[in-house]
Amino acid sequence: MDIESGSREQQQQQSTAGIFKCGWSCIKSLPGKFNDNVIEFTNKVKKLGKDDPRRITHSIKVGLTLSLVSLLYYFSPIYGGFGSSTMWAILTVVVVFEFSVGATLGKGLNRAIATFLAGALGVGAHHLATLAGDKGEPILLGLFVFLLASASSFSRFFPGIKARYDYGVLIFILTFSLVSVSGYRVEKILELAHQRLSTIIIGSATCVIISIFVCPVWAGEDLHKLTALNIEKLADFLQGFGGEYFEREGDMKDKKSSLHGYKSVLNSKTSEESLANFARWEPPHGRFRFRHPWTQYLKIGALTRQCACRIEALNGCINSEIQAPSHEFKKKIQEACTKMSLESSKALMELSSSIKTMTNPWAVDAHLSNSKAAADDLKNALKTSKLAKTDLLQIIPAATVTSLLVEILTCIEKIADSVNELSRLAKFKNVDPPMTPERQPEHLVQQGISTEPNSDCSVPNVVITIREIIFATPTTGNGNSPEAKT
Amino acid sequence: MDIESGSREQQQQQSTAGIFKCGWSCIKSLPGKFNDNVIEFTNKVKKLGKDDPRRITHSIKVGLTLSLVSLLYYFSPIYGGFGSSTMWAILTVVVVFEFSVGATLGKGLNRAIATFLAGALGVGAHHLATLAGDKGEPILLGLFVFLLASASSFSRFFPGIKARYDYGVLIFILTFSLVSVSGYRVEKILELAHQRLSTIIIGSATCVIISIFVCPVWAGEDLHKLTALNIEKLADFLQGFGGEYFEREGDMKDKKSSLHGYKSVLNSKTSEESLANFARWEPPHGRFRFRHPWTQYLKIGALTRQCACRIEALNGCINSEIQAPSHEFKKKIQEACTKMSLESSKALMELSSSIKTMTNPWAVDAHLSNSKAAADDLKNALKTSKLAKTDLLQIIPAATVTSLLVEILTCIEKIADSVNELSRLAKFKNVDPPMTPERQPEHLVQQGISTEPNSDCSVPNVVITIREIIFATPTTGNGNSPEAKT
Repeated sequence: MDIESGSREQQQQQSTAGIFKCGWSCIKSLPGKFNDNVIEFTNKVKKLGKDDPRRITHSIKVGLTLSLVSLLYYFSPIYGGFGSSTMWAILTVVVVFEFSVGATLGKGLNRAIATFLAGALGVGAHHLATLAGDKGEPILLGLFVFLLASASSFSRFFPGIKARYDYGVLIFILTFSLVSVSGYRVEKILELAHQRLSTIIIGSATCVIISIFVCPVWAGEDLHKLTALNIEKLADFLQGFGGEYFEREGDMKDKKSSLHGYKSVLNSKTSEESLANFARWEPPHGRFRFRHPWTQYLKIGALTRQCACRIEALNGCINSEIQAPSHEFKKKIQEACTKMSLESSKALMELSSSIKTMTNPWAVDAHLSNSKAAADDLKNALKTSKLAKTDLLQIIPAATVTSLLVEILTCIEKIADSVNELSRLAKFKNVDPPMTPERQPEHLVQQGISTEPNSDCSVPNVVITIREIIFATPTTGNGNSPEAKT
Repeated sequence: MDIESGSREQQQQQSTAGIFKCGWSCIKSLPGKFNDNVIEFTNKVKKLGKDDPRRITHSIKVGLTLSLVSLLYYFSPIYGGFGSSTMWAILTVVVVFEFSVGATLGKGLNRAIATFLAGALGVGAHHLATLAGDKGEPILLGLFVFLLASASSFSRFFPGIKARYDYGVLIFILTFSLVSVSGYRVEKILELAHQRLSTIIIGSATCVIISIFVCPVWAGEDLHKLTALNIEKLADFLQGFGGEYFEREGDMKDKKSSLHGYKSVLNSKTSEESLANFARWEPPHGRFRFRHPWTQYLKIGALTRQCACRIEALNGCINSEIQAPSHEFKKKIQEACTKMSLESSKALMELSSSIKTMTNPWAVDAHLSNSKAAADDLKNALKTSKLAKTDLLQIIPAATVTSLLVEILTCIEKIADSVNELSRLAKFKNVDPPMTPERQPEHLVQQGISTEPNSDCSVPNVVITIREIIFATPTTGNGNSPEAKT
């Protein structure tokens, strides 16, 4: 028994010791875990801030505006007369202040106008209801609120209203209900409506002013940059594609990362649309004039996504599990395909930088022509070659690549058209092509068209017209212009 | 002079008559234009309602809830003690009531919890500030508001917080500012915080109750249906593709419309993500249990979009401007390609209906095997045929179609895997395959595998396991089951 009880005690002691040990190590590891979490959190915050430093500025701006309005309220030199309506200014700042100027302006205007309209309507409804007597009043008011709230809620399903006036409709319902119902209690309904509107206007105005004048974030500029960046991502893929598909050597890791950039383009529709909606609220700023053609960016975006889709299919070919293509055939098409892909990439790069710098994309046509010439070379090569011994199955993968590259070229031509349209609508600067002897042969002489506009170029009219304008521009001091030659 | 003045008068009269005439015709046409507008507007409303009748129900629900809360406020049996805080109930209803239960519940919970936390913190901040004396108080309060608003605004950039707690953070900033600053005026700060929280909870609860119990719209169910519908759209394309590409005859218009359905799939990411976010807030309902694997739908959605991208490339082949493929070659691949496309379409259809009915996708493997068999047939046909006279250029377009169809098949296998994973996670019903003599040969005998599980099938383990379970299920009274045969 003694031995048993002794061993039990020992066991108990051991187990308690074990628990203590475990507990102690848990406690000891807590600060470590806590530290790990803190470090992880700090890194996340740093990354967020590094990715877009404007996020930090925005946060500080919100804090600043809010404490400004709060303190004004606290000291009450302006707000003194408004009583409890004062809190609407704070409320407005919190709700209206958005990341970009356009979003803030849109929300502020929506809020102010909706409050005004709904306030006026609410006063009217309240007056009408009082005429119905003590018993009829609540019934009539309930009916008004029901009808207006139902109709307004339904209107939020219209895509046009949803995109631009969703917040306004919300505030409209809110203010109408508050004014028409609360009027019964406060009596001084007109004064209340006036106070509320004033404080909301003060709040909105503060937001808009701070958002425009302190480190502004323009949605329009973001859309502009995003459009250019997306085109650039496609160019990056096409630039790396030739090497990746035909060689499969060198630093694979680096290539891979540049080749996967295009994937984000595929899902860019929503962000582009919301940026375009915000941009429409923005006043002229920087390089963007009044009525800048924001919708044209959406068209370019749609075509870019279409092109990205083809590139996704092309990317599938790199990692294809279908039988590897024959080396003989692959070699036959390598040069032309690589050239097509590179020239397409250059054309996209030119389009992207043309958007970025807001200049006419004068060099795009040359690259497109080069790419088309490569496609023609490829066609001729394929026409003449009669594959005797290789079987068809081995040709298919490489044939697919060729065909997709041609499809992508068609897509790029469409993108070029819509960028040219943007350039026309937004009056991009005309920049004289730098006709240096080094640059000329690379783009133009190669095709035997020297500096004359390409007559059999299938790029649509707009492009040709613009090129002709560019080429016709007297470039004094540059001996390579057509005028100087003729 | 007389004549001149006379003619002038005449001219003036004529011109005035002209203006009157024009004005009159304008006025006369006004009711017509007004009528046109009214008719157009009515049609738009009708279309919106017809597309989704739940929109009408939702609007009526909002109106009902709002007039209910307004009237309760008006009659004040419950609210009587809350004074001017009462309006927070109305405000809450307007802002919190969303289309789906998940969105409403998420916003309601966010609002209530954020108000509670921020209220407590605001009271604390206010108390702390009063300790600093009359001069220090506003400075300290301003600092608190600035710090909290800045930090909270920054936290809204975290993707995880943005997706689920964005509204909560907004309300947190709002309530903290209001409570900490307004405390100075109202004195009874604790009472105010309590009142506000109570009215907000009453408003949120009313919204949630009405949204759950009166014609509920479940975001989860919408996501479920959308996933199935998107897969079905891809199936529709593949079903029509063979006829469209190889025949180009019959009722083109009908085919075209069915062929373009897939395009909406390409841009479905955002709506799927927001539905999944809302669905996570929803309580178990109908066929969806607690912790239903909503994220798995996002995985299926991503693969569906990847497949849609390949289909977009395939669609490009139909309208390709590249040289038309040779008829000889097209005929060679027609049968196998059409079969691949049809069987792929059937597999997708089975996957879609498996999601819809929440049953195991038992018949998918058979279709995938059939499709693979067709691909193998195609490979063999291509291996043996040595094209003597046709040039390569004419083969490329049709070769691309073949290659893309194989890629699509790979995609569909991935979709099938992830649907099987969903079926496992969400415990889909096991349904015995209806082994009728009519149905069996079509799917299985054709490949010479009778009712044995396909041993060389490359569909991953999960699928095979499930099939084995299904096949092992004793299907008494059905002479075709393996047990009955052995």
